[in-house]
Amino acid sequence: MTRGEAEALDRADVLAPQRAAFDLPGGVIYLDGNSLGAPPRRALERLRVCAQDEWRTGLVRSWNDAGWIDLPLRAGAKIAALIGVRADEVIVADSVSGNLFKLASALLTHKPGRALAVEADEFPTDQYVLEGLSRLTGARLVRLAPGAAPPHGAVFVKSLVHYRTAAVADMAGLERAAVGAGTDIVWDLSHAAGAISVDAGANGARFAAGCGYKYLNGGPGAPAFVFVRSDAAPSLRQPLSGWMGAKAPFDFSSAYEPADGVRRFAAGTPPVLSLAALDAALDIFDGADLGALEAKARALGDMLLAAGAAAGLDPVVVSGRRGGHVSFRHVEGCAIVQALIARGVIGDFRAPDILRFGFAPLYLSYTDVWRAGEILREVMAKGLWRDPRYAARGKVT
Amino acid sequence: MTRGEAEALDRADVLAPQRAAFDLPGGVIYLDGNSLGAPPRRALERLRVCAQDEWRTGLVRSWNDAGWIDLPLRAGAKIAALIGVRADEVIVADSVSGNLFKLASALLTHKPGRALAVEADEFPTDQYVLEGLSRLTGARLVRLAPGAAPPHGAVFVKSLVHYRTAAVADMAGLERAAVGAGTDIVWDLSHAAGAISVDAGANGARFAAGCGYKYLNGGPGAPAFVFVRSDAAPSLRQPLSGWMGAKAPFDFSSAYEPADGVRRFAAGTPPVLSLAALDAALDIFDGADLGALEAKARALGDMLLAAGAAAGLDPVVVSGRRGGHVSFRHVEGCAIVQALIARGVIGDFRAPDILRFGFAPLYLSYTDVWRAGEILREVMAKGLWRDPRYAARGKVT
Repeated sequence: MTRGEAEALDRADVLAPQRAAFDLPGGVIYLDGNSLGAPPRRALERLRVCAQDEWRTGLVRSWNDAGWIDLPLRAGAKIAALIGVRADEVIVADSVSGNLFKLASALLTHKPGRALAVEADEFPTDQYVLEGLSRLTGARLVRLAPGAAPPHGAVFVKSLVHYRTAAVADMAGLERAAVGAGTDIVWDLSHAAGAISVDAGANGARFAAGCGYKYLNGGPGAPAFVFVRSDAAPSLRQPLSGWMGAKAPFDFSSAYEPADGVRRFAAGTPPVLSLAALDAALDIFDGADLGALEAKARALGDMLLAAGAAAGLDPVVVSGRRGGHVSFRHVEGCAIVQALIARGVIGDFRAPDILRFGFAPLYLSYTDVWRAGEILREVMAKGLWRDPRYAARGKVT
Repeated sequence: MTRGEAEALDRADVLAPQRAAFDLPGGVIYLDGNSLGAPPRRALERLRVCAQDEWRTGLVRSWNDAGWIDLPLRAGAKIAALIGVRADEVIVADSVSGNLFKLASALLTHKPGRALAVEADEFPTDQYVLEGLSRLTGARLVRLAPGAAPPHGAVFVKSLVHYRTAAVADMAGLERAAVGAGTDIVWDLSHAAGAISVDAGANGARFAAGCGYKYLNGGPGAPAFVFVRSDAAPSLRQPLSGWMGAKAPFDFSSAYEPADGVRRFAAGTPPVLSLAALDAALDIFDGADLGALEAKARALGDMLLAAGAAAGLDPVVVSGRRGGHVSFRHVEGCAIVQALIARGVIGDFRAPDILRFGFAPLYLSYTDVWRAGEILREVMAKGLWRDPRYAARGKVT
């Protein structure tokens, strides 16, 4: 593809005007929105208002007067629209780790004796949390070969979009099989929400958690979300039963009575500043066509896959649907990513050998990705990554 | 006390200059810093920098370049200084509810078969979390009469400062008894940290959690903290074993190996915006004399207790040490608090009949509290709370 062809695609891109809604720094091509989304202007403004007008001026009154107390459900309703479920089936709370723990342990309590299951190449925190729950309760933890079926009756934690390959799992097919096998799937939507069309409701999903700081652009470490289908909520009790999940937190009663619906998956007091930024960031998606977002991310990813392959990188090929990122394998991946970052192309590295590039379709242009491809070719052709400054460094998803 | 006497106390108050470090709104006397602390100017500024320079400009690079990855331990070290423990024994993470759950479940896993214990008038979330843990694991939950000893070998969750009465528990005495009985006490320092001199290390405390948004002024829903004494940490495994508590989060290994020390009590990715505000807010306490803070809060509280008693309210009397707040009982407490708020005196109400007023000694003056006392007298003398607008409303600690 030539630069002119990329520019022509941008002129025809119905999503191109969305870029103005983001406050992007100059001098970088940001291909890491799958790790930390760039700030929507309205999120930055809302954070300012939350700090200055609500915290400073309103002080504790803002729990009522600024509606802080309802923020977890208000933001949850916006996420519900992005994952194809009812507005009252999602709440924002805690971290993905915490929410996976709450869901898995509630399902374990509901039917004791069942196993916990997770694929051995699943995102580490998903594995770790089940390991912790297994140690605490004695429930058996089964690590599955990727793609293998979980044991009958298990609680199965599964990412819809794989964090390395971006492969999209067959949600409807797995849910059909799960219902037949008495299995409950807890979907991790971290790399899916805001990147692809999810349709959790139509596909039969009943439980999910996901991340607020990737494609949802909620800010660093933004709180996560929980989805529980409304017919399943009344029978589930989660053990992190903090006061915000109680039916009447301000009765100060001694015994815990859970709130109706998904609010029982709230635990302690939420981090309001971070939550307010996420809540505002979600408005970016109001009326968004998720299918169009997925298609554009796919097209952008295809462009970089072609450029990377031409430059000698080994692309991770996905058959079928793909999430918002693409990956390559290279033994010197860490140094290559550092060399790219030094030249303004921000992607990330996942040990031991994965170079990962994400394509947030709301703020990336075809020309951006064309330029990133050119820089990638130059880094590879000239061996620019062979620089001692590009030693291994930790990075955070 | 006359206004002139209050003004004289302010002139002699060595803490008076600290008030300038806070950004306080006009027109209110804020007696609810025990629920949500007022914003330190540096916290508001840090939040702006974190959003604009770190998130917007630095994007994902800020995990390394702005040191986000180390913030939980950096902020933890500042809290450690306030509670009298080693700098590397505290981490900021999650909510108080989450941290109590992690501590109690780690201690349960460490010695299976033990009971969980909590006083029946303990802050609700502390009771609720143990109830949830009991349901998940089958561990027996014992609700104690206030002041009663827990069963031998129990995991006992106990507030150092009671959320209603402000009574300060005998930390050293209870720890001595606990060691003899094989009991582990998990202290809830929510109403203590930043309000009174805690000296957890000298008093033999080994485990604690506490709140970031009360006297620590970290902002609404600021993340909470965990203290684990360094000699106890290596043998404890907590089940919310998210990737941020792993020894090497960026190795992306399948099996969880906990970090050394208290970092193993981290779970998922922390809410950085909220965390950065807390981290900056804590600098207010740099070099602070906690004993002087406690003494000033006591003096301010005594002033309001006298004014309230004179106005016909029933003070909740505490023998011995008292935390940073005072309480009264009145059957119409909710309406009285609303009438006070309408007149610029912000306290809070705790069902069923508690009026609660907190005295953050860094930003309150004696004259403030003198004026609050005058307004309280007027509200009571004229029955100003008998107004239908002052109906019951929920409020958040």
